[in-house]
Amino acid sequence: MAAADPPPSPPVSFGIIGCARIAHKVSRAMLLSPNSTIVAIGCRSAEKAAAFAKDNGFPASAKTYGSYDAVLEDPDVDALYIPLPTSLHLHWAVLAAKKKKHVLLDKPVALNVGELDEILAACESSGVQYMDATMWMHHPRTAEMKAFLSDERRFGQLKAVQSCFTFAADKYFLENDIRVKPDLDALGALGDAGWYCVGSILWAADFDLPKSVLALRGTVFNSAGVILACSASLHWEEGKVATFYCSFEANLATDVTVFGTKGTLRFHDFIIPFEEREALFSTAEKSGFTEPLTGWEGKPSQHTVITELPQEALMVTEFSRLVGSIKFEGAKPEKKWPSLSRKTQLVLDAVKASIEKGYETVEIVS
Amino acid sequence: MAAADPPPSPPVSFGIIGCARIAHKVSRAMLLSPNSTIVAIGCRSAEKAAAFAKDNGFPASAKTYGSYDAVLEDPDVDALYIPLPTSLHLHWAVLAAKKKKHVLLDKPVALNVGELDEILAACESSGVQYMDATMWMHHPRTAEMKAFLSDERRFGQLKAVQSCFTFAADKYFLENDIRVKPDLDALGALGDAGWYCVGSILWAADFDLPKSVLALRGTVFNSAGVILACSASLHWEEGKVATFYCSFEANLATDVTVFGTKGTLRFHDFIIPFEEREALFSTAEKSGFTEPLTGWEGKPSQHTVITELPQEALMVTEFSRLVGSIKFEGAKPEKKWPSLSRKTQLVLDAVKASIEKGYETVEIVS
Repeated sequence: MAAADPPPSPPVSFGIIGCARIAHKVSRAMLLSPNSTIVAIGCRSAEKAAAFAKDNGFPASAKTYGSYDAVLEDPDVDALYIPLPTSLHLHWAVLAAKKKKHVLLDKPVALNVGELDEILAACESSGVQYMDATMWMHHPRTAEMKAFLSDERRFGQLKAVQSCFTFAADKYFLENDIRVKPDLDALGALGDAGWYCVGSILWAADFDLPKSVLALRGTVFNSAGVILACSASLHWEEGKVATFYCSFEANLATDVTVFGTKGTLRFHDFIIPFEEREALFSTAEKSGFTEPLTGWEGKPSQHTVITELPQEALMVTEFSRLVGSIKFEGAKPEKKWPSLSRKTQLVLDAVKASIEKGYETVEIVS
Repeated sequence: MAAADPPPSPPVSFGIIGCARIAHKVSRAMLLSPNSTIVAIGCRSAEKAAAFAKDNGFPASAKTYGSYDAVLEDPDVDALYIPLPTSLHLHWAVLAAKKKKHVLLDKPVALNVGELDEILAACESSGVQYMDATMWMHHPRTAEMKAFLSDERRFGQLKAVQSCFTFAADKYFLENDIRVKPDLDALGALGDAGWYCVGSILWAADFDLPKSVLALRGTVFNSAGVILACSASLHWEEGKVATFYCSFEANLATDVTVFGTKGTLRFHDFIIPFEEREALFSTAEKSGFTEPLTGWEGKPSQHTVITELPQEALMVTEFSRLVGSIKFEGAKPEKKWPSLSRKTQLVLDAVKASIEKGYETVEIVS
């Protein structure tokens, strides 16, 4: 006798505070996600909130508020998506947790790990789920690539990673965007772009924290002291090494190359895939030059991964699944996501410290 | 009245000293090159030389010697190809120049720039052409890629380079190859693989020398103190930065990524193309995320470059063209090639010095 499927849980109800550009994408993801819905949005003006809801096809029942507080007070809101500037995360994420709202927090998640620890402590204390909004981690390609990296026979042991996230910010961005303002996103390109680079490296390293970090000379700052471009190296034992380059000053590039003893993994659109419904990655195994050194065996080969839902909708779906488990089944919050977020922040902090110390090596202390 | 073509010059006559693995490839290139021929080879035994000549289809007239000196004394030899271990380059290249033989020298060209300067001085004093045997520089793809990098409208200004050359040496190599022996190729992976990485970076930077170099922690040495893997960063002014990773311990990978303000260049087989007759590279221009941040515009596009002759034959042809100009037309040696070689060696030396100084930044003094 087959057990009947349990009745489906109602969708998780999201509130959104702030009408940032990224909120267009994430609210679309909430509407695409089968276990999520949007019940409220608050902006600094009610008119902006109403316009945002209309422009983005929110359900007619969604409430629009002229303040963030109103969203946090709304008893219909299960979970809060926070796309605010980084300097506001501590206040709003802690408050959300205290109001028993689950927290989907945009990245960079905090100005430093001390702030993040306050956020995580508030979430833990309230028993709410925390997740940062790093979308590529939820693409099915990411799991397929991880299977390759985990296959000792094909990839061997990890030896090195090279990662980058660069984009060419225009004049308007460089003068006005929150990411170049010391009071809003003080980590600049390191927080906005470096977050992804560090995350990709830690991902390749199974989130085994490096022993030390060294920022490389040549950090570019704007006149307010915010980082516009920087690079760094991460070091483990036995020569395992990673480098990354992040910049607001170079053409858009988002590459990760992972070097193993037996295999190589490459992908060139790790943050946002070139196409929404399919994504490529390349693997090479047991590569060598053919005799007399005029060609290759074990050439890189392309793999295509199809996804019905875009990665941001899969992220929202996973977050809602965890929230639903807590709300309807009494589960505990999943600790993996706060842990990955915290490790990423620890490395970012160390890169920043290395820059501030004049490019000294900084040990990572978890 | 059309001028008649000048009568074609006779081909340049090569001698080869040493029967290394790479000499199979380069002698094949000499036979493919329309303005080159092989007239002599000397190995440590006459039998080996004869077998090498037979196995590699040398002209029946080619002489085979049981010593290197015999090749240098042979008046039919215009130019010498030297595929010997690096520690022997100083002696044989200087001697070749003194005997008025043009010098095609395998890389790494010398143990340090002091040795290289002795070689270059000997060549200059004798009026013979010097070129190092870095083949990829002569592939037509390289010129096409350079045209992209030089196009301000498409690529903008150079901001960063990432390069790698890794291969997974087997147990036999790690115990026996000249590249792991301190008395033969003392620079190990830095000389053998790092030479290419540094060259690719300098190439992208129009051979503008960096101001400083920093080796990154985690160099791997064998029990004899030879480098098996290392990485380093190169620094120019205004934040321009390059990093490379070279290793005998990771699956074969030869990638270069060049970051410009407006464009990106990528190629994954820079040292030896995947295929002999056609090579790919990828460019991206004015790339950006499409709204609402769910895809790309200005995606990377692939370009194919066909070549009738493999890059090593084009290298030999270019070298012979220069030698022919000197021999038959009284031209002076081309100074570009010794200059590029010397700049590469200067950076290699600085990386080595940085490792030896415990990972201090080393200024480049040309």
